[in-house]
Amino acid sequence: MTFPKTKPIPESHHYILQDLPTGHLATLRPDGRLSVNPVALIFDGQHIRVSTLKSRMKYKNLLQDPRVAISVPHRNNPNIYVEVRGIAELTDDPDRSFVNSIARHYMNVDEYPFDEAGAQRVTITIHAEQVSAPEIPLADDPPAAPDTQSQDET
Amino acid sequence: MTFPKTKPIPESHHYILQDLPTGHLATLRPDGRLSVNPVALIFDGQHIRVSTLKSRMKYKNLLQDPRVAISVPHRNNPNIYVEVRGIAELTDDPDRSFVNSIARHYMNVDEYPFDEAGAQRVTITIHAEQVSAPEIPLADDPPAAPDTQSQDET
Repeated sequence: MTFPKTKPIPESHHYILQDLPTGHLATLRPDGRLSVNPVALIFDGQHIRVSTLKSRMKYKNLLQDPRVAISVPHRNNPNIYVEVRGIAELTDDPDRSFVNSIARHYMNVDEYPFDEAGAQRVTITIHAEQVSAPEIPLADDPPAAPDTQSQDET
Repeated sequence: MTFPKTKPIPESHHYILQDLPTGHLATLRPDGRLSVNPVALIFDGQHIRVSTLKSRMKYKNLLQDPRVAISVPHRNNPNIYVEVRGIAELTDDPDRSFVNSIARHYMNVDEYPFDEAGAQRVTITIHAEQVSAPEIPLADDPPAAPDTQSQDET
């Protein structure tokens, strides 16, 4: 599978993605319903990455349909957020290096402590096709914003 | 259009929905991409409701495809959340009573102050088909949870 060249996220919003945020990852279920739930994430300046398990619904959803979107509010100010829409790449994490990097980043421990023995980790890499990074006054429906990064109306 | 009888949200999780949360509302765009962004919401004990504008993308998305999902973390603890998947009902809010109820609830003012003159408000009522209300240790991938409300694996 080839993936789109990822769209850049404005540098003005990188701090949101690097300050221990909780993202909300949207996928499509095999039953046709949308699903969205909280996730930890790592942003390397280019891609947002999330860890999941092969037993989890979001893995099954993305295996069937790689379309994905994520909404990432600032940890302490939900009025500021980044939304990325794109395609998910799934990569096995057999040595658990990625999930352990999340544990180090979020929990300051070397190993992610919550998995059962034999749990199979997968890394979700989000290839951004569209990025929306507005600043809004309430947690919904900003008035016409001067921020040209917003693509919510496109 | 008829809507499914909404599934109940466990009373144990009502406080999450009533304590000024920011939900993350997922919709499907006409271009086929998923979208998800932050929203304020009102929960009346049965339905989650959100306000939007007719000019906004999420209104256009839901007009074309009423499938919707929302992830609502507790305002101060993203490890606790409610996810609802279902169908969106769109209702005009010509007297602005609903958006003003959001302003009262979130901002302690009688009128939502951010709209431009002539802005047309719409209320999104989420009819729940599936409710997931687990408690998880990190913001992703709980170990097998004893909480039978979770339908993430169904």
